[in-house]
Amino acid sequence: MFKPKAIAVDIDGTLTDRKRALNCRAVEALRKVKIPVILATGNISCFARAAAKLIGVSDVVICENGGVVRFEYDGEDIVLGDKEKCVEAVRVLEKHFEVELLDFEYRKSEVCMRRSFDINEARKLIEGMGVKLVDSGFAYHIMDADVSKGKALKFVAERLGISSAEFAVIGDSENDIDMFRVAGFGIAVANADERLKEYADLVTPSPDGEGVVEALQFLGLLR
Amino acid sequence: MFKPKAIAVDIDGTLTDRKRALNCRAVEALRKVKIPVILATGNISCFARAAAKLIGVSDVVICENGGVVRFEYDGEDIVLGDKEKCVEAVRVLEKHFEVELLDFEYRKSEVCMRRSFDINEARKLIEGMGVKLVDSGFAYHIMDADVSKGKALKFVAERLGISSAEFAVIGDSENDIDMFRVAGFGIAVANADERLKEYADLVTPSPDGEGVVEALQFLGLLR
Repeated sequence: MFKPKAIAVDIDGTLTDRKRALNCRAVEALRKVKIPVILATGNISCFARAAAKLIGVSDVVICENGGVVRFEYDGEDIVLGDKEKCVEAVRVLEKHFEVELLDFEYRKSEVCMRRSFDINEARKLIEGMGVKLVDSGFAYHIMDADVSKGKALKFVAERLGISSAEFAVIGDSENDIDMFRVAGFGIAVANADERLKEYADLVTPSPDGEGVVEALQFLGLLR
Repeated sequence: MFKPKAIAVDIDGTLTDRKRALNCRAVEALRKVKIPVILATGNISCFARAAAKLIGVSDVVICENGGVVRFEYDGEDIVLGDKEKCVEAVRVLEKHFEVELLDFEYRKSEVCMRRSFDINEARKLIEGMGVKLVDSGFAYHIMDADVSKGKALKFVAERLGISSAEFAVIGDSENDIDMFRVAGFGIAVANADERLKEYADLVTPSPDGEGVVEALQFLGLLR
């Protein structure tokens, strides 16, 4: 059975419900875990560091779908993606759609937008621009094509002196696929994107936070 | 008995423990409250909006000890304090102490510092500069003297079409005193600063999150 040295957990749709409120049973379960628990989210670093503090897990966080990582609450953001490339792609989309930017001032590696246009059509429009358009289920993200939660997980693992293959990861959406690829064990919650489930070693019976508790039980981390 | 139309609740030391992790019983109790629950914190707006979303309460937040308020998760910060005055005061303190700034880039109305010097000595040094030096118990804050959680509460109440006197407020520290002054009913948790308790209509038997649950029960908000 897989014995992780650390786990990485997505926030929205995994630790939270559709309204983005925390599942308290999952929070209390994560506090019992004795190995590092790293939050990995599409959200901005100041959201992720707040979540880590409030949930009571490691201050090490992966943010902006891997475009930014932090190692300390009062530390610096380490930016792994090129926001300028993403802004150029947004300028193209704005010629074709009403684009509503989200958290623009706070995002350091990518651009986040309201889910208000056809994503496949948009993807065609920005092909070859060195960016990718990802749907987190909560927002669209234009990211530097070189950035992913998986690459960020490798970056974080190296700093922690372990391998990404020694991580178990828990997630719900397409933007978790790259993390599942590099982790030793991937667990999708019941409500997860079907594309993510194809990469999962385990799919939990229950959705979001309840699924996280089941995942931690399966990994033997709540004993 | 006082029947509030809304409540304002401090975060650090009130909803959280000393490690700043949320009390899950308090979170679940706040979700049962049927009137608006507004978080009021010394922390930055992107921490406060994250906390509001994760806890599952109103997106209306009072941040930076009243220097910033927000009404919508994806809305704008409304800045009520003059950060420049605070920066000038910091320059004075830096001549006398090792000053470690916290979240400097994110703070829009004040300057936050590590609690690493004598606050009374510091207060003498910046007298007459139009600022005040406040100890949140977690950090020192140099704020525009015209800013307080109380003034921000009045600002928010007006926007919500009620009076600050129709608010019940729950807090633990000195920076909550101004809010207690303008609210209709002030509740201090057991671990609260003695100076705050002098302004409280009620002091809960239990500390922080457990005290919040007791406060909500006392106010009849959990029926």
